[in-house]
Amino acid sequence: MEQLTAQHFADRLARGAAQAREAGLDALLVAPGPDLAYFADYLPPSTERLTMLVIPGEGEPTMVVPVLEHDSAAATRAAGAIRLITWADGEDEHAPLVDQLWSGGRYAVSDSAWALHLLALQHELPDVRFAAFSAALPMLRAVKAPDELDRLAAAGAAADATFEDILNVAFAGRREDEVAADLDRLLREHGHSRVDFTIVGSGPNGANPHHEAGDRVIQQGDMVVLDFGGLMDGYGSDTTRTVHVGEPTDEEHEVFEVVKRAQQAAFDAVAVGVPLQEIDRTARAVIRDAGYGEYFVHRVGHGIGTTTHEPAYLVEGETQPIVAGMCFSIEPGIYLPGRFGVRIEDIVVAGDDGPYRLNNTSHELHLVR
Amino acid sequence: MEQLTAQHFADRLARGAAQAREAGLDALLVAPGPDLAYFADYLPPSTERLTMLVIPGEGEPTMVVPVLEHDSAAATRAAGAIRLITWADGEDEHAPLVDQLWSGGRYAVSDSAWALHLLALQHELPDVRFAAFSAALPMLRAVKAPDELDRLAAAGAAADATFEDILNVAFAGRREDEVAADLDRLLREHGHSRVDFTIVGSGPNGANPHHEAGDRVIQQGDMVVLDFGGLMDGYGSDTTRTVHVGEPTDEEHEVFEVVKRAQQAAFDAVAVGVPLQEIDRTARAVIRDAGYGEYFVHRVGHGIGTTTHEPAYLVEGETQPIVAGMCFSIEPGIYLPGRFGVRIEDIVVAGDDGPYRLNNTSHELHLVR
Repeated sequence: MEQLTAQHFADRLARGAAQAREAGLDALLVAPGPDLAYFADYLPPSTERLTMLVIPGEGEPTMVVPVLEHDSAAATRAAGAIRLITWADGEDEHAPLVDQLWSGGRYAVSDSAWALHLLALQHELPDVRFAAFSAALPMLRAVKAPDELDRLAAAGAAADATFEDILNVAFAGRREDEVAADLDRLLREHGHSRVDFTIVGSGPNGANPHHEAGDRVIQQGDMVVLDFGGLMDGYGSDTTRTVHVGEPTDEEHEVFEVVKRAQQAAFDAVAVGVPLQEIDRTARAVIRDAGYGEYFVHRVGHGIGTTTHEPAYLVEGETQPIVAGMCFSIEPGIYLPGRFGVRIEDIVVAGDDGPYRLNNTSHELHLVR
Repeated sequence: MEQLTAQHFADRLARGAAQAREAGLDALLVAPGPDLAYFADYLPPSTERLTMLVIPGEGEPTMVVPVLEHDSAAATRAAGAIRLITWADGEDEHAPLVDQLWSGGRYAVSDSAWALHLLALQHELPDVRFAAFSAALPMLRAVKAPDELDRLAAAGAAADATFEDILNVAFAGRREDEVAADLDRLLREHGHSRVDFTIVGSGPNGANPHHEAGDRVIQQGDMVVLDFGGLMDGYGSDTTRTVHVGEPTDEEHEVFEVVKRAQQAAFDAVAVGVPLQEIDRTARAVIRDAGYGEYFVHRVGHGIGTTTHEPAYLVEGETQPIVAGMCFSIEPGIYLPGRFGVRIEDIVVAGDDGPYRLNNTSHELHLVR
């Protein structure tokens, strides 16, 4: 795969500046986390000391860093395109950042920037207007460049290989958290550097969409929801398959088929220009028409990139249109409280010529032992 | 060790409410992260969906959670003392939180609360004043209860056992990141559930206080800074020892002795009522008087609790007095650019009858192979 170079980061910074100008903003304030990893190739070693990248609409990107961390910040692939300004312990950490902003300016700030820092800036610059990236630039990182799609595809393939392998382990008689540990190990064996979640929801636990994995012993006859993902080479994976221990009942089979049809219908609805909420509505209509509407209790999907959950969100009320290069999950589910759940999730790219999946394992109901 | 019970969390919530009242605040807004773990025994599974605990000065603590995560939030040891309010995907996540606040109110918010949420609250409630915990209640979690000191002591003992074990591994000829992996493994073997940092700074890398561990091969004759810690049973460890591969030079020995004296002097200066910055000044004076003042480039310490770095900070400008039960690092260092560094760090508790250490391995310069 093509390595990320200084040019990739220079391009990202230039795109960030262009988006700031288009949104009528004076600059973007980029906080540690996935935004800073994306623009500056940088995750600072300390969390409580202020690090903040300022990408002005016009002019040179500037990053305020603790002097202790100057050398780390200067060693990134993006460093040639970013001026560094330092502050030392015992000094006012916000002063050098305040110097980069101007009274009357309009700025957008990372969603996950600390309230501590925002409040300090607001105190020093009462005439400045701040907005969160989600509000001012909701699609800032939502459209992926080719180098990003390559990495997302590789992460998706590793997740698929993990699923193929997990079909060979024993389920019945083992605890959920033992199968979760298998998923964790397999994701790493297939190249992941970080595992974000390994959900194993067996039987009634599968009916709680955010159940992680517990000490329940998986039984013969259980539906088991497997939802797992993490980061590989800086980009995310996230896929869900529901498997069955032994033969399913007619009802289990029916519920599974409804979810499968909903996932396919939502996938087929993806096209450039379609409002994001339409994908949610499409899946929801299939499930509602089958009589299970009240049991699909979450949005149908979320973006993925340098994190495993980010904008764009595929949810009622999200009227932004799909843009070529967007990459998101489609993951409808049906959750029958106290009984079982089914979810099928693929990462999907909105291509110019239609959607394609980054997860390509079969949607059939796999039987495990 | 005594298990944490519902009563411990009820007590913490009551202390939080009392501190809000004393500070003239209507409520504390507690965001996911160490603050929420402390008050609500809870780390939500998703990061992008809003979860926020409101601890009013008077009345019942209330936590806003995604409906998907209701069952997880209801299963904590603190749940009996917290009313839950839910919101669903597609709804305005901030509306139920806005309902808990009142126009004209004064609120303090977790330092690490997301700017996204703070900006949404400010938009809906323009007459409300918000302050960060660090500004309004800097010592909110700084004074530890006996159950917390027990856990911090256990984490410190595990870090000490890790150091005793690392003395037996080979250093010369191995890469820094191999020794770092040993530290990670040993911390976990001694009971840590999470490792936050395993700094191995050999030779010139030791002169960069925030160097982590790289591919440099450790050489005979190197000074090596080892700074490691993480979480055990929810509480942090953080200790630094500097070791030497083979016999040190006279200069290396001298620098080491200066740091050792500075650490002891700072420790001896800890007493209830002394301003926190005095501890920094005490260490700095020893190092300055020895002629190395310009090479001690960071504050002397930081608090530790449910995180490995938190208030109280021992830094110039921090005039808050030491209170019995505070727990913090004391970690002076000397960093000679391009050559080597030395740092010695212990976690220290300010007891009613004087300070005591939670790290108790020897301060002698250990020779490794």
